[in-house]
Amino acid sequence: MSRIVYVNGEYLPEEDAKISVFDRGFLMADAVYEVTSIIDGKMLDFAGHATRLERSLNEIDMKQPCTMAELEAIHRELMARNDLTEGLIYLQVSRGVADRDFVYPDVAPTLVLFTQAKSVLDSPLAKNGMKVISIPDIRWGRRDIKTVQLLAPSMGKMAAKAAGADDAWLVEDGFVTEGTSNNAYIVLENGTIVTRDLSHDILSGITRAAVLRFAAEAQIKVEERPFTIDEAKAAKEAFVTSATTFVGPVVEIDGTEIGDGKVGNTARRLREIYLAESLKSAI
Amino acid sequence: MSRIVYVNGEYLPEEDAKISVFDRGFLMADAVYEVTSIIDGKMLDFAGHATRLERSLNEIDMKQPCTMAELEAIHRELMARNDLTEGLIYLQVSRGVADRDFVYPDVAPTLVLFTQAKSVLDSPLAKNGMKVISIPDIRWGRRDIKTVQLLAPSMGKMAAKAAGADDAWLVEDGFVTEGTSNNAYIVLENGTIVTRDLSHDILSGITRAAVLRFAAEAQIKVEERPFTIDEAKAAKEAFVTSATTFVGPVVEIDGTEIGDGKVGNTARRLREIYLAESLKSAI
Repeated sequence: MSRIVYVNGEYLPEEDAKISVFDRGFLMADAVYEVTSIIDGKMLDFAGHATRLERSLNEIDMKQPCTMAELEAIHRELMARNDLTEGLIYLQVSRGVADRDFVYPDVAPTLVLFTQAKSVLDSPLAKNGMKVISIPDIRWGRRDIKTVQLLAPSMGKMAAKAAGADDAWLVEDGFVTEGTSNNAYIVLENGTIVTRDLSHDILSGITRAAVLRFAAEAQIKVEERPFTIDEAKAAKEAFVTSATTFVGPVVEIDGTEIGDGKVGNTARRLREIYLAESLKSAI
Repeated sequence: MSRIVYVNGEYLPEEDAKISVFDRGFLMADAVYEVTSIIDGKMLDFAGHATRLERSLNEIDMKQPCTMAELEAIHRELMARNDLTEGLIYLQVSRGVADRDFVYPDVAPTLVLFTQAKSVLDSPLAKNGMKVISIPDIRWGRRDIKTVQLLAPSMGKMAAKAAGADDAWLVEDGFVTEGTSNNAYIVLENGTIVTRDLSHDILSGITRAAVLRFAAEAQIKVEERPFTIDEAKAAKEAFVTSATTFVGPVVEIDGTEIGDGKVGNTARRLREIYLAESLKSAI
């Protein structure tokens, strides 16, 4: 079962999908990415991902590989060629190929996209909730740029796995920044949702923006501010959001059950609203 | 003029030197590297680089791609095939090729090596000294592991270039950590060399270790402790060390001349000693 992968204008069997060893994405992590969920053969929040990609590129002075309309067309072509109706499409832009030097070269960017077929709707973790551990946030200082510098999140995921948990929440200066690949939230006893405010410290999640909008529309109070692990342990609920998890309930943090240790109503409801609304506007 | 590049057991013309887009070095910066200088067709400090590579691999639970003896043989073969007598050999190990997932896959690592012919001995910056600017250190918290997460250093080099300088010194919590791709030093009025002590905050430079050893042998006092930019500006001399710069004098920091604004005696002498001693033990 070989996928068809997009590499710089070509649609190739995945075993032929290669890049130069001189690509700066490989040599220097000089690359940014986006992941878009696909449900019923439609893309969720594509415009949001395209806008964030443009921002990431701008923040590190990287050229745009093509127009966003062309990017959308490539997504569609990949879905068609891979019969993808549910799963995700991964997109990466690197600065391009040049002999190794810290100074940015003036070359054409590399564009790679591939599909991953998977059940994103019917997730056991959404049903049963996930367990997280807390670990120090050792990532770089510009987490608002979606770069491929993902070794720390990978190490975090491995630490979680070793501890028998599903994921890790990252803590800096006493406060939770986010999960390894998602934004983190708690729900207070009074029903207020608390999630860290946007800054260079966290990624501005596309799903985060949508969920906070839907929460406001549902008359749920939202506080954007840092919170501690102790506050999270004492919360009524906890959850994460990401483009592929949507809204994922958290039922245990560092071995402490959150609320009654079951998936909370706020998380369940927000997941339903997010999926319903996002599918309506999916393209 | 096409180089011969080593990729996973094959010696290939550089235009054919490719890796899968699914290589974790490309997708997640899940890779470590080393750079060894070549002078007169001999490798400087190869054992030091091999030892540090083993440590980097261990720190992130990555498999060793081959024995260090095999690695040395690949270096020699690349020198021979590329007629390399002066320059450097770059080596990168990534965790390998697998469908994208934060969890480490159990696959064979990817090993890539290539040469860069360049004059490392006769450097204008060594002769005239370099100008540096200070910028915030925004890198991740494990700089002791030599990973390819090099976007921040690249951004730093670009910031230096934009400011008309040659490099940047990185500052965290008020103290210099290191340069973008080198260790940083100052020389006090009393002749004492000051350089930051080893920790997760900086790379344990192979050249740093050698230079500190040679300094001690030359009866120069060394203090391993953090220093500020203000202390550096008031110092008699400043310099950097790296495997490809050796000892590189710094004559200006943030527009302030260091000492008399000329290459200092300590830096010049240490460069001479380092080169003489390293060439003696080069293999």
